[in-house]
Amino acid sequence: MDAKSHIEPRLLKGFRDYLPREMAARQRIVDTTRQVYESYGFLPLGTPAQEYTLILLGKYNEESNKQIYRLESPEGEDVALRFDLTVPLARVVAMYQDLPKPFRRYQVGPVWRADKPDPGRFREFLQFDMDAVGCPSLATDAEMLCAMHDVFLRLRLDEFQIGFSSRKVLEGLVQYADIEPECALPVFRIIDKLEKIGRQGVREELTGGRLDASGDFIPGLKLDQSQVECIEKFLGLPKGGRRGPVTALKELFANIHGGQAGIDELEEICGYLDALSIDESRITVDLSIARGLDYYSGPVWEAKLLNAPQFGTVFAGGRYDGLVRRFSEEDIPATGASIGVDRLLAAMDHLGMVGDSVATAQVLVTVMDKAYLAEYLNMARQLRQAGIPAEVYTGPAKGVGKQLKYANQLRVPVAVVMGSDEYEKGQVAIKNLNVGIKEREGASRQLWEQTGKVGQTTVPCDQLIVTVGAMLAGVEQG
Amino acid sequence: MDAKSHIEPRLLKGFRDYLPREMAARQRIVDTTRQVYESYGFLPLGTPAQEYTLILLGKYNEESNKQIYRLESPEGEDVALRFDLTVPLARVVAMYQDLPKPFRRYQVGPVWRADKPDPGRFREFLQFDMDAVGCPSLATDAEMLCAMHDVFLRLRLDEFQIGFSSRKVLEGLVQYADIEPECALPVFRIIDKLEKIGRQGVREELTGGRLDASGDFIPGLKLDQSQVECIEKFLGLPKGGRRGPVTALKELFANIHGGQAGIDELEEICGYLDALSIDESRITVDLSIARGLDYYSGPVWEAKLLNAPQFGTVFAGGRYDGLVRRFSEEDIPATGASIGVDRLLAAMDHLGMVGDSVATAQVLVTVMDKAYLAEYLNMARQLRQAGIPAEVYTGPAKGVGKQLKYANQLRVPVAVVMGSDEYEKGQVAIKNLNVGIKEREGASRQLWEQTGKVGQTTVPCDQLIVTVGAMLAGVEQG
Repeated sequence: MDAKSHIEPRLLKGFRDYLPREMAARQRIVDTTRQVYESYGFLPLGTPAQEYTLILLGKYNEESNKQIYRLESPEGEDVALRFDLTVPLARVVAMYQDLPKPFRRYQVGPVWRADKPDPGRFREFLQFDMDAVGCPSLATDAEMLCAMHDVFLRLRLDEFQIGFSSRKVLEGLVQYADIEPECALPVFRIIDKLEKIGRQGVREELTGGRLDASGDFIPGLKLDQSQVECIEKFLGLPKGGRRGPVTALKELFANIHGGQAGIDELEEICGYLDALSIDESRITVDLSIARGLDYYSGPVWEAKLLNAPQFGTVFAGGRYDGLVRRFSEEDIPATGASIGVDRLLAAMDHLGMVGDSVATAQVLVTVMDKAYLAEYLNMARQLRQAGIPAEVYTGPAKGVGKQLKYANQLRVPVAVVMGSDEYEKGQVAIKNLNVGIKEREGASRQLWEQTGKVGQTTVPCDQLIVTVGAMLAGVEQG
Repeated sequence: MDAKSHIEPRLLKGFRDYLPREMAARQRIVDTTRQVYESYGFLPLGTPAQEYTLILLGKYNEESNKQIYRLESPEGEDVALRFDLTVPLARVVAMYQDLPKPFRRYQVGPVWRADKPDPGRFREFLQFDMDAVGCPSLATDAEMLCAMHDVFLRLRLDEFQIGFSSRKVLEGLVQYADIEPECALPVFRIIDKLEKIGRQGVREELTGGRLDASGDFIPGLKLDQSQVECIEKFLGLPKGGRRGPVTALKELFANIHGGQAGIDELEEICGYLDALSIDESRITVDLSIARGLDYYSGPVWEAKLLNAPQFGTVFAGGRYDGLVRRFSEEDIPATGASIGVDRLLAAMDHLGMVGDSVATAQVLVTVMDKAYLAEYLNMARQLRQAGIPAEVYTGPAKGVGKQLKYANQLRVPVAVVMGSDEYEKGQVAIKNLNVGIKEREGASRQLWEQTGKVGQTTVPCDQLIVTVGAMLAGVEQG
């Protein structure tokens, strides 16, 4: 190809690359979540990115509000990219009779939505789901909340809050506010936007409509004044903790027969959480939680970071007892939760929890003289065999200074240097590069002064492993 | 939805689900490979599933033989699903000026090809790639071979063979056999099929053509007899080890000026492998290796399992110094290797290396009485906090026998039982389920007899953790 006719390298709108710094942090989220979910006995599952459009949308296109990517199979069939991991799970449960029952699975993978992208909202994003299928007891829902709680703590995200309510409470509200059945789901969806659009926005959408941020008109539900007042009274119930909101709700619904099922659900879950001594500021009853999807049938929950609320809900889910019925005559109760990994990653980056260190190697073996390449490869291999990740510098020929700069850019802590002087004496020079990294300088220098070690030492080749090992142990102590 | 109007749950042709047994094994392959690649200093990268079609295929559609999945972006652009991870890497390298140089990255993710599916060949499959970009030295290629070698050993796949050759050797062959330049790549592609179609098939494709297994006619290259003889002489060179084939090749190409560059490459790589004491039956020179892709420019390699040769190449790659030029005026040398994870998994399953145990939990806390659910949840939580993965049985109400059957199906080794008798005494019963699993019965029973332990023990609640821990330690010893 003519060198000048090159193609401009660019990304599609709404898509992004994960360079090593972000990718390492994303992997840490995924690994940690997997560890927690496996500690609860969830099993791994993988399903394809492509499914029949009919499978994904159902016969009545109930979820046609999802913007899905469609394509054509080589056989000419109507196919789409999955927009979540829950519908494929329902298909799997209906398809394989030999699955363990209950089936508690986790799945992590990308999903695609042809939404309008905006900052922090992508058309491809990674979801990490856990679901328990065939589990009628609300003890399972309590466990979902606990597992979410554990994931946050394990990621060292201390300032989180998980709120939960129940669709059955909202059904009580429908009765309390005397809302027409066909308006129920639209009302839930408006309540779900409370945090985003505020009280005033909710009132406008319940009544005459409003202009959104981009100037588009969102038509209102045209509820009457008394209905709106009831909804506002409900949304105005006290917040915080678990027993307080439930007690207030009981008073509000005192004369509403239909609200009891929801109150019972909240109380049962509160009982489990109390028994587990889960802090009620971390898992709390939040009656404004509704969730937008139509398939939820019981408890619903969502979690946010109190020190990064602008990133919104990073973790959410609920009970959906009817979804499997799309594919089967069986009615199978199920509940689950999903992490928006990329949104959580963005929040953690904002909180300064994504470091600059990208190195996977702990040692860079520099290349001083091409004649010794076999020796360099051998040193790296010995280090690896001793459990120390090691990289030979494989870039174009450069002085040792530039090679150490490369090590510093990646934050590789130790470098090994062997030129002809060292080679002839059977020695290697070992450099502690942390001494040279400015932001760590104070701590490291102090460490090295305390331990009497210096930034560089030259040892016989057969002491390479033990010297590097000791140096790395010192770095970790620091 | 009407229960009777359900949608038939089914998969697209060429796609598959990974149920927990397979998924756990797939994750083991991915985790192990990642560990090895990180020990070589490779950094993680993530790129989107969708790219501009122009980016993926290039201006001249050189790779139009790839069957790609096309779709339309919401903006109406021509978009496709990636068919490999190498072209997106080349885009990334051209796009971000701040990447470390050299850029050594690994990436794992699904790719899609709208090929004709057949058993073991899927339209969606997981690739795990490592590539070193900006690395001109063949020491890097030697490291690629070593890393592949290490992955096999770490996966306990002892009977592997990695063969390598060089496109420059094949360029020598072009000169030796006096092949027209435009026939060079087609000849390489035919040689690449040697293992699949045999000597006779190669001869037919080089000359008049042949009928393939499905009865389609593949036209031949119409080379003349002397050209075919030269190619056959080349393919007939001795096999096995490293020095033997190179010495024979030197003799064959003695009068061919153009073959020296290839011989030099092989000798340099052999030198590194010898210095690293890599067994020459494991990494061997194989002159019949050509690889089908057009972008290879130097060493090429592929690996197979000697005890599962029917699964073909499970790991392959080579040097491609020109690919980045598609997106940039810079000429950046690069080399890489890719694992076909799903093919490797199929081979490991065939070899009996995928176990039946799918449990992630080590303890099942059974539910004897709903009244004690909070206690059951609490026991599981305590076990987890002690580092022991534990699951509470969350299926519909069933007797303890059925719950233990569920534990056995998953191969959960230990169960905890607390009914009203135990509850009132402040006790729990702990069962060693391994005793009950038939295929392990002999070993386990022996173990329990030796250690004087029995299949069930009842202890005070506060001894739950220590008793389960001891039981699991015994199971692991067994």
